[in-house]
Amino acid sequence: MTIQTALAELSSLLGQRLTRSKSDLDLHGRSETHFPLTPPDAVAYPETTDEVSQIVKICAAHACPVIGWGTGTSLEGQAQAFQGGLCVDFRLMNKILRINPEDMDVAIQPGLTREELNTELRATGLFFPVDPGANASLGGMASTRASGTTAVRYGTMRDSVLGLEVVLADGRIIRTGTRARKSSAGYDLTGLFVGAEGTLGLITELTLRLQGQPEAITAAVCAFERIEDAVNCVIDTIQMGLPMARIEFVDADAAAAFNAYSGSDMREIPHLMVEFHGSEQGVAEQAESFGAIVADHGGQGFEWATTPEDRTALWTMRHHAHWAIMASKPGCRSIVTDICVPISRLAEAVNATRADIAASPITGPILGHVGDGNFHAILLFDDTDPAQVKAAEDLSHRMVERALAMGGTATGEHGIGVGKLKYMEAEHGQAWGVMGSIKQALDPQNIMNPGKMVQNS
Amino acid sequence: MTIQTALAELSSLLGQRLTRSKSDLDLHGRSETHFPLTPPDAVAYPETTDEVSQIVKICAAHACPVIGWGTGTSLEGQAQAFQGGLCVDFRLMNKILRINPEDMDVAIQPGLTREELNTELRATGLFFPVDPGANASLGGMASTRASGTTAVRYGTMRDSVLGLEVVLADGRIIRTGTRARKSSAGYDLTGLFVGAEGTLGLITELTLRLQGQPEAITAAVCAFERIEDAVNCVIDTIQMGLPMARIEFVDADAAAAFNAYSGSDMREIPHLMVEFHGSEQGVAEQAESFGAIVADHGGQGFEWATTPEDRTALWTMRHHAHWAIMASKPGCRSIVTDICVPISRLAEAVNATRADIAASPITGPILGHVGDGNFHAILLFDDTDPAQVKAAEDLSHRMVERALAMGGTATGEHGIGVGKLKYMEAEHGQAWGVMGSIKQALDPQNIMNPGKMVQNS
Repeated sequence: MTIQTALAELSSLLGQRLTRSKSDLDLHGRSETHFPLTPPDAVAYPETTDEVSQIVKICAAHACPVIGWGTGTSLEGQAQAFQGGLCVDFRLMNKILRINPEDMDVAIQPGLTREELNTELRATGLFFPVDPGANASLGGMASTRASGTTAVRYGTMRDSVLGLEVVLADGRIIRTGTRARKSSAGYDLTGLFVGAEGTLGLITELTLRLQGQPEAITAAVCAFERIEDAVNCVIDTIQMGLPMARIEFVDADAAAAFNAYSGSDMREIPHLMVEFHGSEQGVAEQAESFGAIVADHGGQGFEWATTPEDRTALWTMRHHAHWAIMASKPGCRSIVTDICVPISRLAEAVNATRADIAASPITGPILGHVGDGNFHAILLFDDTDPAQVKAAEDLSHRMVERALAMGGTATGEHGIGVGKLKYMEAEHGQAWGVMGSIKQALDPQNIMNPGKMVQNS
Repeated sequence: MTIQTALAELSSLLGQRLTRSKSDLDLHGRSETHFPLTPPDAVAYPETTDEVSQIVKICAAHACPVIGWGTGTSLEGQAQAFQGGLCVDFRLMNKILRINPEDMDVAIQPGLTREELNTELRATGLFFPVDPGANASLGGMASTRASGTTAVRYGTMRDSVLGLEVVLADGRIIRTGTRARKSSAGYDLTGLFVGAEGTLGLITELTLRLQGQPEAITAAVCAFERIEDAVNCVIDTIQMGLPMARIEFVDADAAAAFNAYSGSDMREIPHLMVEFHGSEQGVAEQAESFGAIVADHGGQGFEWATTPEDRTALWTMRHHAHWAIMASKPGCRSIVTDICVPISRLAEAVNATRADIAASPITGPILGHVGDGNFHAILLFDDTDPAQVKAAEDLSHRMVERALAMGGTATGEHGIGVGKLKYMEAEHGQAWGVMGSIKQALDPQNIMNPGKMVQNS
């Protein structure tokens, strides 16, 4: 078997850093969500870019699939080894290579996690802002084009990656981008590999844009009787040009789940959670302007969390939302939806989703990064009840259809993986074929994360 | 001849909107800078996307080159018809298709210019911020990945294009991106076509991100004895997180040219010109903080331009810099360089360039978008004197070498065209070959702007 020949050569190259134990294979065949176990044939733990290049060359010679692995926190089964092959786990490539405080950038290896990076940056006055919730690896975050609560202010991984080192499907090592802040020199390959989910190559180094730690931070929470009041408040805030660092929506069901899980006493109606970053004076001014907009839209129970402890409590509650919601229906499984729509259609999209869930036999609290028009319903279902499973799948499907009809996208931040592949044609039309042509050009043997992203792969 | 056959078919399709007059061909064979006249065989003036698609299909059937044309303001000969063929001039496709104030975006045709767009947007409270100086077409600006004075705050065309409609080399019409603010659905094709200089397809529609018109604007100018003081002032301003809308550097020679041209009385030493956008209170606070940083670095003659008239005078002077500098040496031609370096290397790069110019027989005032690390020397030479021509070419070449050695780029915003093609391999290494593979995949006949961007085309 050709994969077996590849594994023998890889074993010579890596020694103990190639593993085939069942526990390790199962660990790398698992996903955070509802996809089946699909273990790879082996797991490699490279230490250098040259080693990654040699690994890919061996795999290319034997047509062995190559699947990158960060921390395993992707939500759409991006790292599932459908066709077996080699999982390349980047945990040993987790160094910070260079911090450049004057240029506000950092070069890192892909296995470093965002929390590890921010811990190291603490003394520099800088931080890396992209925060998808999970303590994901930065290589994985780039590959999924992750974002999260702070994208409304600081952008997504697309905006935060200045350059990459990539090992291509034939083992060639390339560098994309420069350390300059902008360039008009050629095709934007950095942007092409960000979000490619490992289907065009393996990222072995990233240069990331950093931000200055704000002098002052303030956060607040407020409640609204109706979803549209909360959303219109967000639209006005954006139009005023108030530079929110985060603006998160939670619906009545999510507020109820928080209360039950964290012992909070939120009214069980829609809420906004907001954070401002800036100078003391700037943050105070933004807070005042935001308070006036909230009042205009009938917001209630407006409360500032000015101490670090109060802020931490607020965002910890938000970050634990998934667990709070899972705890609200013990034993249930979940589908986490991820649509993103133009903000003018957001209230309509949330209301239609709420009504659709209410008419179904299951529950599904809603949370959203509403400054971007991105929201998630956590659809909870008993997987022993076929009617509930079908209801969850149908709700998820209708959410995507609704998003596409509104000019939005099937996935704002979780990516395509296995779960969203079936929507690529509907979302992109003939442009999906162009993606296939690019894949074919860069990976003609289809060994890089095969079965993902493009047609017939 | 196959091109002749194509032109006969195009003439049937377009009637009077296909021209072959010498004057029209010459107009479309000319560039703004020092490249030779390279007229196309014909010029087409399409009115619809479908017509563009039919045009490209005819050209594809006869292997006739297709070169897009906006306003002819590109600086590196991007639209030069090396191999003859058809120039597609988008001047009749210059409509605004939809303005979405709530979503702060607009859909337009590629022939619309940025000034036309901003005139139409005036009543909406929104504006399109990217400002390369010239009143370029927005399709051209996207194709060149243009930026300019405001990129430090609002980003470049890469950050401002949300989605595209593109006619591919076989005439297929695709749409890239969605109207959602972010997406993780597949390869970033929008980013791939932005900056591709028409080598992968013709852009027939753009969805652009707009910004809110600021409540308050203030601008200032100040002088420094040394280049490094001005640059360190910029670095500190960025590190403090002050959200400058523009921060422009002019050197002593440029200040002298302004004085001679505009009758201003700037001291003939390095200057910074800066602008802040925000609320009344926010702008006042930023101005105060910036004043303190300027004082720390020995800045002199600090003056605020708070009235709209004073601001207009300041930025008009900056926008006319090219003409002011050209007027300083009547009869001379120019090479406009465009390197961009990490900001930590900026003072070193500017000083080395100044010293290099001083040791040469020619002059070359320097201007820069220093918040991005991007600067231009306007190298002035008498093109009847071979020693001066060689000096200008050598200086330009050494600037690029210096930029690349510092981790920067050969072009921050002017693009590759003809002038920078020879640096692609040095800047990108093997990644240039990847660009070639993508070109080959999407334009196997090499009819889209042939001779540009990639190797052996």
